[in-house]
Amino acid sequence: MNLHVYLAGQIHDNWREDIREQAQSMNLPIEFSGPMENHERSDNIGEEILGEQSDPVFKDEAASSLNNLRTEVLMQKADVVIALFGEKYKQWNSAMDAGAAIAMGKPFILIRPRELHHPTKELANKAQVVVETKQQALQALSYIFEKN
Amino acid sequence: MNLHVYLAGQIHDNWREDIREQAQSMNLPIEFSGPMENHERSDNIGEEILGEQSDPVFKDEAASSLNNLRTEVLMQKADVVIALFGEKYKQWNSAMDAGAAIAMGKPFILIRPRELHHPTKELANKAQVVVETKQQALQALSYIFEKN
Amino acid sequence: MNLHVYLAGQIHDNWREDIREQAQSMNLPIEFSGPMENHERSDNIGEEILGEQSDPVFKDEAASSLNNLRTEVLMQKADVVIALFGEKYKQWNSAMDAGAAIAMGKPFILIRPRELHHPTKELANKAQVVVETKQQALQALSYIFEKN
Amino acid sequence: MNLHVYLAGQIHDNWREDIREQAQSMNLPIEFSGPMENHERSDNIGEEILGEQSDPVFKDEAASSLNNLRTEVLMQKADVVIALFGEKYKQWNSAMDAGAAIAMGKPFILIRPRELHHPTKELANKAQVVVETKQQALQALSYIFEKN
Amino acid sequence: MNLHVYLAGQIHDNWREDIREQAQSMNLPIEFSGPMENHERSDNIGEEILGEQSDPVFKDEAASSLNNLRTEVLMQKADVVIALFGEKYKQWNSAMDAGAAIAMGKPFILIRPRELHHPTKELANKAQVVVETKQQALQALSYIFEKN
Amino acid sequence: MNLHVYLAGQIHDNWREDIREQAQSMNLPIEFSGPMENHERSDNIGEEILGEQSDPVFKDEAASSLNNLRTEVLMQKADVVIALFGEKYKQWNSAMDAGAAIAMGKPFILIRPRELHHPTKELANKAQVVVETKQQALQALSYIFEKN
Amino acid sequence: MNLHVYLAGQIHDNWREDIREQAQSMNLPIEFSGPMENHERSDNIGEEILGEQSDPVFKDEAASSLNNLRTEVLMQKADVVIALFGEKYKQWNSAMDAGAAIAMGKPFILIRPRELHHPTKELANKAQVVVETKQQALQALSYIFEKN
Amino acid sequence: MNLHVYLAGQIHDNWREDIREQAQSMNLPIEFSGPMENHERSDNIGEEILGEQSDPVFKDEAASSLNNLRTEVLMQKADVVIALFGEKYKQWNSAMDAGAAIAMGKPFILIRPRELHHPTKELANKAQVVVETKQQALQALSYIFEKN
Repeated sequence: MNLHVYLAGQIHDNWREDIREQAQSMNLPIEFSGPMENHERSDNIGEEILGEQSDPVFKDEAASSLNNLRTEVLMQKADVVIALFGEKYKQWNSAMDAGAAIAMGKPFILIRPRELHHPTKELANKAQVVVETKQQALQALSYIFEKN
Repeated sequence: MNLHVYLAGQIHDNWREDIREQAQSMNLPIEFSGPMENHERSDNIGEEILGEQSDPVFKDEAASSLNNLRTEVLMQKADVVIALFGEKYKQWNSAMDAGAAIAMGKPFILIRPRELHHPTKELANKAQVVVETKQQALQALSYIFEKN
Repeated sequence: MNLHVYLAGQIHDNWREDIREQAQSMNLPIEFSGPMENHERSDNIGEEILGEQSDPVFKDEAASSLNNLRTEVLMQKADVVIALFGEKYKQWNSAMDAGAAIAMGKPFILIRPRELHHPTKELANKAQVVVETKQQALQALSYIFEKN
Repeated sequence: MNLHVYLAGQIHDNWREDIREQAQSMNLPIEFSGPMENHERSDNIGEEILGEQSDPVFKDEAASSLNNLRTEVLMQKADVVIALFGEKYKQWNSAMDAGAAIAMGKPFILIRPRELHHPTKELANKAQVVVETKQQALQALSYIFEKN
Repeated sequence: MNLHVYLAGQIHDNWREDIREQAQSMNLPIEFSGPMENHERSDNIGEEILGEQSDPVFKDEAASSLNNLRTEVLMQKADVVIALFGEKYKQWNSAMDAGAAIAMGKPFILIRPRELHHPTKELANKAQVVVETKQQALQALSYIFEKN
Repeated sequence: MNLHVYLAGQIHDNWREDIREQAQSMNLPIEFSGPMENHERSDNIGEEILGEQSDPVFKDEAASSLNNLRTEVLMQKADVVIALFGEKYKQWNSAMDAGAAIAMGKPFILIRPRELHHPTKELANKAQVVVETKQQALQALSYIFEKN
Repeated sequence: MNLHVYLAGQIHDNWREDIREQAQSMNLPIEFSGPMENHERSDNIGEEILGEQSDPVFKDEAASSLNNLRTEVLMQKADVVIALFGEKYKQWNSAMDAGAAIAMGKPFILIRPRELHHPTKELANKAQVVVETKQQALQALSYIFEKN
Repeated sequence: MNLHVYLAGQIHDNWREDIREQAQSMNLPIEFSGPMENHERSDNIGEEILGEQSDPVFKDEAASSLNNLRTEVLMQKADVVIALFGEKYKQWNSAMDAGAAIAMGKPFILIRPRELHHPTKELANKAQVVVETKQQALQALSYIFEKN
């Protein structure tokens, strides 16, 4: 049995790479996917494909139509969705993706630093598992495959 | 035909009351619902019902289990979901509710000030309608009932 | 038992009014709904609510976001969907609504003049009932309520 | 990860072959499917399998039952649906397929020349991505697979 | 609480009338619906609405499109589906309706004489309740409303 | 807005009556339903309707087919499901009903004495709200209706 | 692309073997499944696994629980469902399977001799394709894979 | 065709190992999964991953969040769910898993000793197949693959 895990959440550091590498070193049969992590490309992808837009709102609309295409295709393929929240940025699309994943019946793991417990409280309550570190999320994934 | 509209989003001013009153003055046959708007009660409801909890994380978990019960029951009843985002606070549970509403196939209207276009861009792209003011959201609701 | 019937399709003559009136004279307990039938208002509703747009494509995008909101809300309420196709106009949104209705499991009645049998053939094959006149569609609706 | 992409829409030129070839030259792991592109065979398939029919309407009904079988099987397999609209023909079954794909929750890409923006406006608003050329649709598909 | 019960099955005697009358005398708050019970009208309804057809197969196709419209609308409204099988006739559409009801998650009661236990065995196994008489089916419905 | 609340769980004391009465004194617009609470009737209902069975297993099968009919009809109507677990009896059908309610997306409230926390732990984790007393469950229901 | 096709319907001759062989000779990438075709084993499987039952009704109930397990597992895997009706036997479980397949959204092909058009008329109307011979059903399957 | 079978139920003896071994010796193409069978690890997994909890209820909540993650992922992958009930322990999470499996439309096999027929009666009525031994459950699985 293989699993597909979608890594939602912030794209401001390389936390996904850490998870991919550790999963590989633990020999977990998991394929990971996630959003475009190159922040600039993620913001510009609309104009890169569709051409220059007439104002910043339309530039954002164009980019997000492509980012959401990617998310929708990959999240429908996912067996588990993980989202990591950090201190910075608004991260509303991460929270939206989390809400969508839960409503689609995807088992959902939330990673958030303990200090963020208050603003993530409704998300945490909806998550199947809440952890504070990437390492703990990997242990949760590993537990799915464990023989006794 | 009557509609049930769930008003997700921030609970830091009385925007829902404005919408309720204007809808009434426009004679729209709409029943509105939403989260507990008394912020303090929303934060304390867990301890009020379940008793004092041993630390702030568990206090939040208790409160959010009741807030999510309310949201889940009311959002399943809703024909339309509206969310208003403002400048302040993290509003992650608003974004989660929006994601859930969209994934449940509920027609969704986003109200956000123009300045917030960048952080709301993926939400805006998923919304059926994006407006900047409460008045515009009401006009959108009113359009559903309009005879030609 | 009452039924809600959504009348999709062209908005270039008053065929819906004919159906409403005849249904009333037949005492059928049916509530009808449909798109905005004032063509000009349907095309301009985006700018009327959201303000002037910077070019015709964005004007259309704004208008269709509101037209689709209306369709989505009303079609989810419908027990039966009827679409009438005529000789004129592209009527792609009618065909899209028909496809959506069928995929949502809504019983679907197609009204089309016999001459249009070739371009409507896949639609006709998907429809539960295919008729050529409004009168026949009303007889089909009436048959649902008939005592033996 | 491989994707299955269904190419709905007009069958009057070889646009699907262009897409297939370019996808291959870009090494995209995509399997494409679509309707019968031989227009004559698509129109005659009913009589070829079921024998001569008594009039043109029944000939069309027979053919469309087989065309819709093909579409239904392939579209249920698809991860993404793309439809291309052109200037000619009524293309109502393309619009119906688009509506069905969207209602089934399939991420949907619309290709249409800019001049068609008005008659496709409700379709465009429902699409996840709207582009004007086959090349742009391929870039959108490619973006799903991109590493940062 | 009211219930809507769809009475599928044979239309060759007045078993539905018996059930309706007994339910009324038991004061059960149940609205019953079912297929057209006038056998001749059920067979001719296609030609009555759509005009004379060119051969018996097309006459049947026309009639069944209207009979299935009626069944689909009413069965989607139903909280419980009951089907009665008798000794005579093929009753394949009754069995099809039963299969559809079960697949749609509708609680299903099968009424069949004991002698028919062998040919109804897979249906009986799928039914929530299997009885031999109309009276027993009514007792089952009544049990849903009973206070202790 | 009215709610329908299904009260699953043990039928060995009159806890449902307490809840109904308190809800009424709190003026909550809630209709409650639940299983047959007369234990003997619940065990004998199969033979009462279907006649004497040839052994105790078949007597149980007959009874449970009717009990499950009742549960299925009522639980599909419910907006919220509550289950109360007590110290006595195996209560496996209560746990099955709870699992079904959760899988059907019904908001679920678990009432269990604190001492039972270990054997109910997976149920508690799946519940939207976990409380220890009937009074707390009523407060949770009341919170759904509260104005700020 | 491979397809899984479930062959419902009568088990009184070797029509499935014919279809399997012809599909192989046509190089169609199709895996076929179906019910137990050994009629005697199908009738006795309950007692073979669960032991002798106390009367013929219970023998049938035991057998059908296993036959339905098989059908349910295999039909959930199927991309297309085909049912063949013949002159003999009641074939109610075939009609039930057909109804279930259609309600589950499985594309459905009906094979029936022309003489049976009247008793199969509602089934035929619900089927995506209606043919008279096994050969025609294979041509319909083949059409799904055809390049133009 | 391969199947994935989830083995729910008690974790107090090695019944799963017996089933796995016998299935292998019968050459059944089945992949089995199930809960963590090391009882101690199952109870402690929350603290092992998330650290020491402040009281036994929170320890249980932490453990069950991980046990339910595992169950949810694996049960969504399953084609068939089997649950074995024994004399000892409350086994409420087994009954909850059974209820969830049935509500998710997973074909469900119940293994229970005959003596437990009364407390399992509603579960048995909902199960597709009820057997008394592991050997019989394997015969049921084997029957799915049998050629005639």
